[in-house]
Amino acid sequence: MGKSLPVSPLAPDAFPDLPEIGGVRFATAEAGVRYSGRTDVMLASLAPGTSVAGVFTRSATRSAAVLDCQAKIGGDPAQGAAILVNSGNANAFTGRRGTAAVEAVTNATAKRLGIPSDRVFTASTGVIGEPLPHDRVTACLDDLATRLAPGGIADAAHAIMTTDTFPKGSTETVTIDGQPVRIAGIAKGSGMIAPDMATMLVYIFTDAAMEQPVLQDMLSVLNRTTFNCITVDSDTSTSDTLLMAATGASGIRISGTNVGFMEALRRVMLDLAHQVVRDGEGATKFIEVSVTGAASDAEAHVHAKSIANSPLVKTAIAGEDPNWGRVVMAVGKSGARADRDRLSIWFGDLEVAHEGEVSPDHDEDKAAAYMKNEEIVIHVDLGLGGGTARVWTCDLTHGYIEINADYRS
Amino acid sequence: MGKSLPVSPLAPDAFPDLPEIGGVRFATAEAGVRYSGRTDVMLASLAPGTSVAGVFTRSATRSAAVLDCQAKIGGDPAQGAAILVNSGNANAFTGRRGTAAVEAVTNATAKRLGIPSDRVFTASTGVIGEPLPHDRVTACLDDLATRLAPGGIADAAHAIMTTDTFPKGSTETVTIDGQPVRIAGIAKGSGMIAPDMATMLVYIFTDAAMEQPVLQDMLSVLNRTTFNCITVDSDTSTSDTLLMAATGASGIRISGTNVGFMEALRRVMLDLAHQVVRDGEGATKFIEVSVTGAASDAEAHVHAKSIANSPLVKTAIAGEDPNWGRVVMAVGKSGARADRDRLSIWFGDLEVAHEGEVSPDHDEDKAAAYMKNEEIVIHVDLGLGGGTARVWTCDLTHGYIEINADYRS
Repeated sequence: MGKSLPVSPLAPDAFPDLPEIGGVRFATAEAGVRYSGRTDVMLASLAPGTSVAGVFTRSATRSAAVLDCQAKIGGDPAQGAAILVNSGNANAFTGRRGTAAVEAVTNATAKRLGIPSDRVFTASTGVIGEPLPHDRVTACLDDLATRLAPGGIADAAHAIMTTDTFPKGSTETVTIDGQPVRIAGIAKGSGMIAPDMATMLVYIFTDAAMEQPVLQDMLSVLNRTTFNCITVDSDTSTSDTLLMAATGASGIRISGTNVGFMEALRRVMLDLAHQVVRDGEGATKFIEVSVTGAASDAEAHVHAKSIANSPLVKTAIAGEDPNWGRVVMAVGKSGARADRDRLSIWFGDLEVAHEGEVSPDHDEDKAAAYMKNEEIVIHVDLGLGGGTARVWTCDLTHGYIEINADYRS
Repeated sequence: MGKSLPVSPLAPDAFPDLPEIGGVRFATAEAGVRYSGRTDVMLASLAPGTSVAGVFTRSATRSAAVLDCQAKIGGDPAQGAAILVNSGNANAFTGRRGTAAVEAVTNATAKRLGIPSDRVFTASTGVIGEPLPHDRVTACLDDLATRLAPGGIADAAHAIMTTDTFPKGSTETVTIDGQPVRIAGIAKGSGMIAPDMATMLVYIFTDAAMEQPVLQDMLSVLNRTTFNCITVDSDTSTSDTLLMAATGASGIRISGTNVGFMEALRRVMLDLAHQVVRDGEGATKFIEVSVTGAASDAEAHVHAKSIANSPLVKTAIAGEDPNWGRVVMAVGKSGARADRDRLSIWFGDLEVAHEGEVSPDHDEDKAAAYMKNEEIVIHVDLGLGGGTARVWTCDLTHGYIEINADYRS
């Protein structure tokens, strides 16, 4: 699974060179939860003094691990912390056995690392509804704890993959008071990706020192315009988790008003979010949907999501067809305000529709040539007000059908 | 287009034998709007005394013809009426030229038939954003008017097809006061089909006598549980139109409380709605999603739609995979209330999940065998209240991608 899929044509050239973050150590193992011949468990150990913040799926059927993490966010940084993730089994919709599995894993991890169990954050990703063989995970703990090392983040990015075709990482370094402050993050995600949630599994680490409420606020705010603005297939996972840990190892304290750090963190989050879209199941095109002139930012977001989730828009782009009529359709059905006769549409720099009808400048050949690009920008101006939004998605291809019509069997 | 696609494997064995409806005459022609070698215009002439009611798309970018029809519904039955439909071009998002085209067609039709132009209802279906060559339609009017005949409804069903792979018709006869009252309807639709609208082009005729407000109320109420409960791809058309004409030729007057007639009409509407799903682009499975135990009927409908529109649920069914975890996911993301630990799921009669985890009776082999059926029933009980809903859809296959990645080019 995953491993047998060809790497997405939209993948970056290489996994980035992620720096070590003081206070964070990683280890991975082959627990054999579901996959064989590959790592499927990652452990991250966080030094005492590390603040941890998180954003999670809003699904009403969220997994036991997500519920457990949500209850623990905001605990005492002095105790240190740990993140333990398995791939291959989501431990979702597994009832009391699911809750017991999370308890077993967090208790065993806490005991082995000598930290309280309410400082152990777990996640599980993979098939839904099958009991997690948690003993296979806990059986690896001695080995994992022995091999914890600062340089293992790339291996960690591999261990959490499911249908992903490439590991996802991003980094930024900001200089504050003459000192480098580092941010490094990893993510996994390829299908069951939709806006309005924390999306997938994302782990971001920094050696900045941050109070937990400052970290939580910054993460939540930036999440709205990054991970909450991507969609692969409009389907929201039961397990989406975004966790960020600030170890303080750099000795530099970051407040909520540090624009330089916040912008760097935003770039890391957006880069990881885009990488998830670039690994969208079956994707051959990376699409930015930009909406301006809406009655409000919220309504712009509704229009942008409606376009980005439309199977007809996504298949037209897969077919390299500049079918802007389907964009009109998606705006019309969104439920947010639109006036047909003020609506204009661009593919890249080419205006294809102008105030409710085909643009006088429209050139079908130029538009068709533009659609051959690997990155497509659709811009819609509603002509109503100042509301704007940007959303990123991929096309809908035979690859998506192939991957999902035979995921579990 | 359309003609070259293989007939859906879910198509009925044959087009039904539709009765003539007193007061209704049909004619079709090859106007060459976009297609060649097939009919693409249909004219229905309605005798004086005919009430006409309609339900239309709620799209904010609805077509000029839809806006025109909405303004005319409820006019004077004494004048008679006409319905004129072309396929191949939707005349949607065509600005002032679109409005002018509707005026040209309705005026020419009115003049030729000797009725007021506010009694001519038009619709256009096909590609969006290209100006309608309305002169090609009006050039056929003399020929159409000369050939109007009571028996032409099957030909009419053919003329309005676009990506449809079979024509859709349905009929019922009710005996009232010892007299037969007939209902006959035709529909077209295959892609860009989503709930919360009148859906596609649907024309229903009866020789009952009905006051227009009675007819309108009955149509609107029945639409909620028929056409508004189907979805192919969650994409809502700019042109959806459901029109019903009651000529009164039977001499039998129907009130709003005639349960026998209303039930017969409901069966015709549901039959036509199911035929649209059975011709869903690329469909190989007909799927009923039944939700019970929701907090309200409205929330049951939200859950049912979320399941029926989920690409992951639809691809799982295409792959004959009893992947009920994806049903859990779709319930969780819907936004309506759900309690994971009260949720139970059945595929047909097989309980696969029971109160938040895999059912003790679950047998993977039996479930896999059930998924090989052409008709699949997914039943979700939320265990919260008395709300219920039923929605119908089809699976998502390579056929959908093939049809839509190359519709216009």
